[in-house]
Amino acid sequence: MQQHVISVLVSNHFGALTRIAGLFARRGYNIESLTVGVTEDPSVSRMTIVVMGDDHVLDQIKKQLQKLYDVRYVASLPPDNSACRELCLVKVNATPSVRGSIIEAVHVFRASVIDLSPQSMIIEMTGEAQKISAFLELMRPYGILELSRTGITGLSRSSDPLGSEPPVE
Amino acid sequence: MQQHVISVLVSNHFGALTRIAGLFARRGYNIESLTVGVTEDPSVSRMTIVVMGDDHVLDQIKKQLQKLYDVRYVASLPPDNSACRELCLVKVNATPSVRGSIIEAVHVFRASVIDLSPQSMIIEMTGEAQKISAFLELMRPYGILELSRTGITGLSRSSDPLGSEPPVE
Repeated sequence: MQQHVISVLVSNHFGALTRIAGLFARRGYNIESLTVGVTEDPSVSRMTIVVMGDDHVLDQIKKQLQKLYDVRYVASLPPDNSACRELCLVKVNATPSVRGSIIEAVHVFRASVIDLSPQSMIIEMTGEAQKISAFLELMRPYGILELSRTGITGLSRSSDPLGSEPPVE
Repeated sequence: MQQHVISVLVSNHFGALTRIAGLFARRGYNIESLTVGVTEDPSVSRMTIVVMGDDHVLDQIKKQLQKLYDVRYVASLPPDNSACRELCLVKVNATPSVRGSIIEAVHVFRASVIDLSPQSMIIEMTGEAQKISAFLELMRPYGILELSRTGITGLSRSSDPLGSEPPVE
């Protein structure tokens, strides 16, 4: 079992997200995270899906996705040839006595404090999943009140945009 | 028409994402962006959904979501009482002659360069949607090769975690 990041360019048809999510549910693929955001082309969204599975599962998913009417292009983002990042917002218990040591950790991890109240603070951090996990481990003793992670998004390191070459059969 | 950010705590049941996406498609609600990520509790995911609509639509969506078996808690994140951020990765045409001026813009926007090739660079930036749009506007003349945005995620500014009080009927 391995983590695979799949990048999908999807036409903004009505219900496209449901059809894609439905494919994963029907086939029993397990989605670890999913993000959908706009692209430079208003008629196209980019979906980044993280699934667990072996290489056979990855092949199957790519083939199944390519069959969908809404899907324009599918590619997997191999770890050695892509840049993947995740955004995490975390609200931590932070009474004035511990605030200083939390802020030290925030600096070390190049995170930033985006909200401060008398009892808590909200920290924003971006990075690879392992970096985020390490930071959360450090925050746990203070008390994590709330956590929101976007899931992974990524781009291939190649200069050619996704979809500029014909899709792999 | 207004943008609404809805935060949903969802039990990690099989197919939960499909059921939720299906609700939006059936009812004709238009999803601007969607993120699903893990939380501190491995049995619960947090979904952040951005929809366009008036207050009536927002009420309807919250009520419909609350009826779903997989949904544990629903709240909207009003702009004045929440911290919302989005992560954007952008690959820009960057021959050596323009690299310097791109890097200047990267510093001003507190973004960072995460990959560099002879012809292009990948820039990571986090912020509110408007800040990201302003940065992309600045990058457009260089040539945006690829763009991947996670969609918005957010937390309420209140010290109480989502779901610590009984859900609003």
